[in-house]
Amino acid sequence: MAVYRGNFLYTPALGQLKVVERGWLITENGLVHSLTQRQPASAGPLTADFGDALILPAFTDLHLHAPQLPNMGLGYSEGLGGWLERYTYPIEHQYADPSYAHQLNAALISQLRRYGSLHAVIMGSTSAAAAADLLEQYRRSGMWAYVGKMNSDYPGYGVQNEQTAPSIAETVQLAHRYGGPGRVRYAISPEFVPCCSDELMAALGQLARETGLPVHSHMSEGESDLQLVRRRFPREGCYAGVYARFGLMGSGPSVMAHCLTSPEEEIALLKQHGSFVAHCPVCSLDLAGSGLPPIRRYLNEGIPVGLGSDIAGGHTLNMMQVIVAAVQISKLVVQQKPQLSPLSEVEALYLATKGGGAFFGRVGSFEPGYSFDALVIDDRHLGQLSPLHLSPAQRLERFLYCGDDRHISRRYCAGRELTAL
Amino acid sequence: MAVYRGNFLYTPALGQLKVVERGWLITENGLVHSLTQRQPASAGPLTADFGDALILPAFTDLHLHAPQLPNMGLGYSEGLGGWLERYTYPIEHQYADPSYAHQLNAALISQLRRYGSLHAVIMGSTSAAAAADLLEQYRRSGMWAYVGKMNSDYPGYGVQNEQTAPSIAETVQLAHRYGGPGRVRYAISPEFVPCCSDELMAALGQLARETGLPVHSHMSEGESDLQLVRRRFPREGCYAGVYARFGLMGSGPSVMAHCLTSPEEEIALLKQHGSFVAHCPVCSLDLAGSGLPPIRRYLNEGIPVGLGSDIAGGHTLNMMQVIVAAVQISKLVVQQKPQLSPLSEVEALYLATKGGGAFFGRVGSFEPGYSFDALVIDDRHLGQLSPLHLSPAQRLERFLYCGDDRHISRRYCAGRELTAL
Repeated sequence: MAVYRGNFLYTPALGQLKVVERGWLITENGLVHSLTQRQPASAGPLTADFGDALILPAFTDLHLHAPQLPNMGLGYSEGLGGWLERYTYPIEHQYADPSYAHQLNAALISQLRRYGSLHAVIMGSTSAAAAADLLEQYRRSGMWAYVGKMNSDYPGYGVQNEQTAPSIAETVQLAHRYGGPGRVRYAISPEFVPCCSDELMAALGQLARETGLPVHSHMSEGESDLQLVRRRFPREGCYAGVYARFGLMGSGPSVMAHCLTSPEEEIALLKQHGSFVAHCPVCSLDLAGSGLPPIRRYLNEGIPVGLGSDIAGGHTLNMMQVIVAAVQISKLVVQQKPQLSPLSEVEALYLATKGGGAFFGRVGSFEPGYSFDALVIDDRHLGQLSPLHLSPAQRLERFLYCGDDRHISRRYCAGRELTAL
Repeated sequence: MAVYRGNFLYTPALGQLKVVERGWLITENGLVHSLTQRQPASAGPLTADFGDALILPAFTDLHLHAPQLPNMGLGYSEGLGGWLERYTYPIEHQYADPSYAHQLNAALISQLRRYGSLHAVIMGSTSAAAAADLLEQYRRSGMWAYVGKMNSDYPGYGVQNEQTAPSIAETVQLAHRYGGPGRVRYAISPEFVPCCSDELMAALGQLARETGLPVHSHMSEGESDLQLVRRRFPREGCYAGVYARFGLMGSGPSVMAHCLTSPEEEIALLKQHGSFVAHCPVCSLDLAGSGLPPIRRYLNEGIPVGLGSDIAGGHTLNMMQVIVAAVQISKLVVQQKPQLSPLSEVEALYLATKGGGAFFGRVGSFEPGYSFDALVIDDRHLGQLSPLHLSPAQRLERFLYCGDDRHISRRYCAGRELTAL
């Protein structure tokens, strides 16, 4: 049992902010047992008093690319073709070098830890060894992650990244080796429909059914993208239809990044299969051009949504910036679609914590039974001589807009404090 | 004479990036004398070798509100009315307290210095004492600024912030006291047409003609805004027409913030009078709803444009984030107006340096005769094990997207290194 005191803030539901000022949080075996305003009679000695700091659930980064860390902030004015050719692919190939991948994986875990993204869904390159290395390093970190080797055997955009047979064989091997229970597990990761052969998708779908492992992929990033899918699969006509046909949606949990231009039938299939949408708003601004996703629409349908940094389509791992971009984009969407309401900061925080966290289970909240995965926010030097008495909710808002890694002073995962790597 | 070595990057014209790797920059009396690739025969001993760092011209923040520093990151989902009532106005009133204003002014100068915005055009509250204090503190800082007490005597939005006669008298006094030459000067600062009486605008216009001092105001922040102006001034029909009629445009230099929804006749008047547009892209995202300004259109017309943080309509003083937001917004504008091309990072950097800097004269570039106002960028810890050999231009791009104040290691203004305050 551990006992913590502090100002706890969390979002039990979309749009709800629960604030417990100077409250008592008790954990057992790394899980939240209770959070109360008054000192519980049964509480033992204090494990830690966080004083006036804010305590938030740790963030979930629901979509990012491991090998793209060195490309953050580069090439966004290239256009997609030049960006892939000059930036994305060279790094992906480099990632096949084990010592390079090892260093890069360590840097990625360290950066995600620094920004408080203690749960992450990560797509690797096509290198199985690099994905295995990331899984191994993650297991030593104490944090949560789903990691997959990317599968990409079909030249939908003119490039064939790998052969079908080894792609399947390596994936089956990884899935069985890293498919067991635990905080770090394998995710089946086809790149996206245009770059996957029928044979590959069928084999991965079968693997999903056999293992129950989640599927992590991209969906409807733009109109040109969707046209490729419609031409090749006229009967299904959209990504979701193809994934569903091959068992890549509906066999187990799945998370689809983007959904910028999902047609109505795709929205219906997402809903039917309980798929998560990974909303990557910074990427939508950096590589703008394919439209802005109507996230409120998905939420209204009951589709689960989380936030992703999508490095290096997005330029930052700072989840506070991702939250702010989600709010900003939602206001721009309302200008085009006045029937949708914008997201509040509290709603965007929910997406970054409990919303996306649900993909991992009971993480992202301080309700009983949730993993105690928490960030301690020291915002003493964030304000500028404010004469206003800010409420904890206002301090939270200011931290989201103006904070960075310097203002996260401590990080807990499954009840353990994470120390610097 | 001082001699510097380093990797100098600057934008002599919109869209042009000039890179002088391991070059030699010589200054005389704080002005750039020459910048050459080879060591000049006449060069004396090195004053400083910046090694592998990047050296950029200092930024110009062309529009911000001094008393809004404590409001950064607060209240953006309130809607304009609630935001003004609960956030903006209480702080503006507090700013009339001299000791509070003094502390806040010191914090503002320190923050602008930290982010490398060594030139700033700053609107105060209606307090003349607070504006005078900011001018005095700025004179001791070594940096450049235009500062004005805000004039706001007409209840266009239901609030009358001050009386006409003292507003005029105080402004005339400040303008004469701080109107002389130097790096820190007074700017005549009517809030905007809806909040200024005819009498006030006429008096300020006369003052502009008499002193030649610049005018700093807001223009066309939205359709509702424009309707107020059209109803009160049907003959002029737009902000620019009203300002021009009262001598607030065309008497001397002027800078107008926003211009989100400027009608065609306003664009023509901006062009005719050589007015600057202060583009505040972060504000356009944070308080989205009134549309995104077609900056490329203004540039095509030859209207001078700079960038503003517009705190606290925008949530950050970090000019790198402002530059990135300008690029992002320009891509979104292209989705609505395909005839306009997006801004590149190099173009946005130009706006933040030489473009906006032109309001101050010869600042924002390393061409001969320009004030040596420079930032030394230490980006050694910004990259993640990149195997790519990044060019200086790519390092610049990465700094703009991923850098913060930690990566600005030294700051020079008029040839002097600025030390921490």
